[in-house]
Amino acid sequence: MEITSPNNEKVKAWQKLKQKKYRDLEGLFLIEDEHLISEALNHHLVKEIITNDPSLTYPISTYYVTDHIMKLLTDQVSGAKVIGVSKKIKEEEIKGNLIILDNIQDPGNLGTIIRSAVAFNFETLVLSNDTVDIYNPKVIRSTEGMLFNLNIIRTDIIPFLKSLDSTYLKVTTDVKSGKDIKGLNKKPMALVIGNEGKGVREEVASLCDEKVHLEMTKICESLNAGVSASILMYEVFHG
Amino acid sequence: MEITSPNNEKVKAWQKLKQKKYRDLEGLFLIEDEHLISEALNHHLVKEIITNDPSLTYPISTYYVTDHIMKLLTDQVSGAKVIGVSKKIKEEEIKGNLIILDNIQDPGNLGTIIRSAVAFNFETLVLSNDTVDIYNPKVIRSTEGMLFNLNIIRTDIIPFLKSLDSTYLKVTTDVKSGKDIKGLNKKPMALVIGNEGKGVREEVASLCDEKVHLEMTKICESLNAGVSASILMYEVFHG
Repeated sequence: MEITSPNNEKVKAWQKLKQKKYRDLEGLFLIEDEHLISEALNHHLVKEIITNDPSLTYPISTYYVTDHIMKLLTDQVSGAKVIGVSKKIKEEEIKGNLIILDNIQDPGNLGTIIRSAVAFNFETLVLSNDTVDIYNPKVIRSTEGMLFNLNIIRTDIIPFLKSLDSTYLKVTTDVKSGKDIKGLNKKPMALVIGNEGKGVREEVASLCDEKVHLEMTKICESLNAGVSASILMYEVFHG
Repeated sequence: MEITSPNNEKVKAWQKLKQKKYRDLEGLFLIEDEHLISEALNHHLVKEIITNDPSLTYPISTYYVTDHIMKLLTDQVSGAKVIGVSKKIKEEEIKGNLIILDNIQDPGNLGTIIRSAVAFNFETLVLSNDTVDIYNPKVIRSTEGMLFNLNIIRTDIIPFLKSLDSTYLKVTTDVKSGKDIKGLNKKPMALVIGNEGKGVREEVASLCDEKVHLEMTKICESLNAGVSASILMYEVFHG
């Protein structure tokens, strides 16, 4: 199907998906990269495709639009030649090791943590309600498609931690008084990572069984939150 | 000293430092965060301070300017209340473990790698000529001040690797055929990390003694470059 008018109702509806409010309302989000779209297609999440390239064909509803309309929809300065409209990932029951994020704000950090969680077999990602939207285009890009291989839950993490099965070892980080992660009996683990600047909230930390840190030189006070989370998950995977 | 006109020669010169060309020409760069400025002051690199806050005092030349001038100089949407004009860090002879970057493009990745290098005692960072500028404001912010604790060299890394002392074990990554990093005799090490999308150039890889990878689940093909570099440095530090 061809669309040439930027005032077309479909175009207006797609444009709204650039805002979190409408993504939440519609349960849909935009994906800009062919590799990511094929990942989402594999997971049967793509509802329709938008492209300005008449040579592209997809096994689902495809809208052929003008370059101008593509520019209205893309998040990238360099533009996009194909955009997928995808359904959000369904939240499932928790399973496997858990990585829990308390107010992570940087989209790149969230994307990195998603990618590392899949790499190091943390099957469930739990996001506090104030963590950056996982359907933010920057987050999606930096996951390199790994987003679709993870069980993702957004919730209030205080009651979540309180109600968590006691077989889970609840662990968070403390650069000053944490134990070395290498010494811990690690599985199954619920690993809580705090905000980039402020760290984990005290109330959240108090619900954890153990506090860990990564040994480093004295000059450096802390690592990037995405790196810190990734090294801890790496240690649990290899431990 | 007070400056109110955006056409003042000083203001024009500072504005030019937002471009790499002029940073290279003048050997100067701008720093936007009070914490980073104090780190640069500790290293005797700050030449002058620019602020719109009359209550701030510094032990060096300080220019009090209008909000409008601050807006012309800042890289941040939220603005800045103090900006330091800093001299670039002097390149020294190589020392300690080396982390070598072959065309890293993302400022956040470079910042993260700088921070992790300091954390895990890699004393020298070698950047290929096509790696993102370390004096890019986004890089500087994401280093959290650690930039000033590292010996940083920008060069053509092919002749650099060729001329490197044979006591260094030259290591790069190969997700398909690399050895597990845990098995390596690790020090002193020259660790080469490749571009985010394309990896290490073949010519660069062929100059390395060993190829390593990090064990991970089969679903995930690779990690974020900053994370991968950080975990490898962590393993060398702890190995």
